[in-house]
Amino acid sequence: MHSISYYQEVISNHFSSLTINQEPQNLYEPIKYILSLGGKRIRPVLTLMSAEIFNCNYEKALPAATAVEVFHNFSLIHDDIMDDAPLRRGNETVHEKWNINTGILSGDAMLILAYQYFEQYEPIIFRELAKLFSKTALEVCEGQQWDIDFETRDDVTIPEYIKMIEFKTAVLVAAAMKMGAIVADTSKENAELIYDFGLNLGIAFQLQDDYLDAFGDPETFGKQVGGDIIENKKTYLYLKAIEFATTETKEQLLHLFSIQPKENSDKINSVKDIFNLTGSSKATLEAIKEYTEKAFQTLEKMNIEDTKKGVLKAFGENLMGRKV
Amino acid sequence: MHSISYYQEVISNHFSSLTINQEPQNLYEPIKYILSLGGKRIRPVLTLMSAEIFNCNYEKALPAATAVEVFHNFSLIHDDIMDDAPLRRGNETVHEKWNINTGILSGDAMLILAYQYFEQYEPIIFRELAKLFSKTALEVCEGQQWDIDFETRDDVTIPEYIKMIEFKTAVLVAAAMKMGAIVADTSKENAELIYDFGLNLGIAFQLQDDYLDAFGDPETFGKQVGGDIIENKKTYLYLKAIEFATTETKEQLLHLFSIQPKENSDKINSVKDIFNLTGSSKATLEAIKEYTEKAFQTLEKMNIEDTKKGVLKAFGENLMGRKV
Repeated sequence: MHSISYYQEVISNHFSSLTINQEPQNLYEPIKYILSLGGKRIRPVLTLMSAEIFNCNYEKALPAATAVEVFHNFSLIHDDIMDDAPLRRGNETVHEKWNINTGILSGDAMLILAYQYFEQYEPIIFRELAKLFSKTALEVCEGQQWDIDFETRDDVTIPEYIKMIEFKTAVLVAAAMKMGAIVADTSKENAELIYDFGLNLGIAFQLQDDYLDAFGDPETFGKQVGGDIIENKKTYLYLKAIEFATTETKEQLLHLFSIQPKENSDKINSVKDIFNLTGSSKATLEAIKEYTEKAFQTLEKMNIEDTKKGVLKAFGENLMGRKV
Repeated sequence: MHSISYYQEVISNHFSSLTINQEPQNLYEPIKYILSLGGKRIRPVLTLMSAEIFNCNYEKALPAATAVEVFHNFSLIHDDIMDDAPLRRGNETVHEKWNINTGILSGDAMLILAYQYFEQYEPIIFRELAKLFSKTALEVCEGQQWDIDFETRDDVTIPEYIKMIEFKTAVLVAAAMKMGAIVADTSKENAELIYDFGLNLGIAFQLQDDYLDAFGDPETFGKQVGGDIIENKKTYLYLKAIEFATTETKEQLLHLFSIQPKENSDKINSVKDIFNLTGSSKATLEAIKEYTEKAFQTLEKMNIEDTKKGVLKAFGENLMGRKV
């Protein structure tokens, strides 16, 4: 087995040398641009790691890993249009640097390109990968739609919220890992188990992201701490606080989530106090732990050497050990 | 062999009873909406017809035909956003009826759904269909990009224009027919020949569309006659007129294509006069004939019964026999 940083370098080199069509330039330049912005490349790394976990040379999994990362970047381009986001990874978003039409069309081309990377596999593997990919891609669209719908709903339940982050984020992590298993041609059972591992870890990761957005260390958390509160985002922390709050506190929280003050620090502090007071922050930490444990439990059932289970567990612990 | 109108009814019934996911409604309602608007369904009809040409029950080709039509409607949704078009098939476009974000996301979902219809085939056929589909879909995106690029270029050549309409329109017609051949598991040669038949007929059809836009009978032509002239579109007629015109006439045409008068009939008539005077309309009719002949020539090489060649030729003649 190789280290995560080794896989990251493999992926980084692979994307640096990836051949993308040249013409028409206005279609392919934005694709090269977003792929050059880097990012953590966590999904393709998981595909390579998963292939090796199941005794397959990681190089065989490179085309599948590429498909996953290209799809992820397609979804970023289209999501950034929908969210009217100016920045991505500290650089201009595609629709800002070019325009919305370019973002739409280059994104479409990336979704198709992602499928094309599977063509490097033989028919049975190709079909399995493409099937999983289509199912996952459609779920990501559904997750994005739920997320949009939730913005204007005030009756979102916790199970609905979990389903949304599962579809919007976790299924792609899960599929990335399962693709490694498919390429390695391991048993159906192992493939399902690594999917569940990725799914639960993905949910835990997203819940942790919600938590860190409010309670993270500004020094180490990649994004602006308090960003979700400023944007009145109905995260797990918020929904749990609404559930646990007294009538009075609930009204206070609803009020805080209806305003957009120029100076945000008072609002952020008041909301964080409510998250702590209601027990919402504690409940969120518990949920993170619960999904992480669930992920680790699937490892025990997996038919692989213990050292490899150790690798996956270490990866999970490292991922979830981000500074709170 | 069945008649075109029979296939059309099969496709129409098939789309009426097609099961599309229910939830989230805001993602799937727009998909059901655009698919319910009908249209000529020419592409899926061609897939069914092609399957029977190569001795395969047309029902086996229904999933592939569905994929082609769903993809075509995906491209309409995204193109209509890019073109800011208010109407499609006499009804509101998706982004008008909902909004741009809905149009983007529902379109994305349709592109993925299209791939899913191929899952009904066994691995080898699946891989062949999906490969052809990805290649074609990417070419359609490239064609759309060239079309956008040409709007702001004044040095578009005839070969570039032909390439643009080939990619934007003809490759999907060609792929629709080749898919029928793939499902029927006919020879590679036959599959290539039916592709070329569709490609050349598709180019001829699009050139005829350019011609009819200026010289069609308002009674029978589906769209507004003169629409391309009003929008200053650089069609084959325009490019040929620029090529053939004297310096003076060229300046006149360039001027006419730089203005947007409130009353268009004078402009339309002047441009049509130039198209006739320069010999551009004659050259366009010749090009239409040339590509139609090229399509018919591929039929001769095809290894099928003469009666079936007759069916394809009759279809082509019917398609190209639209009232001029």
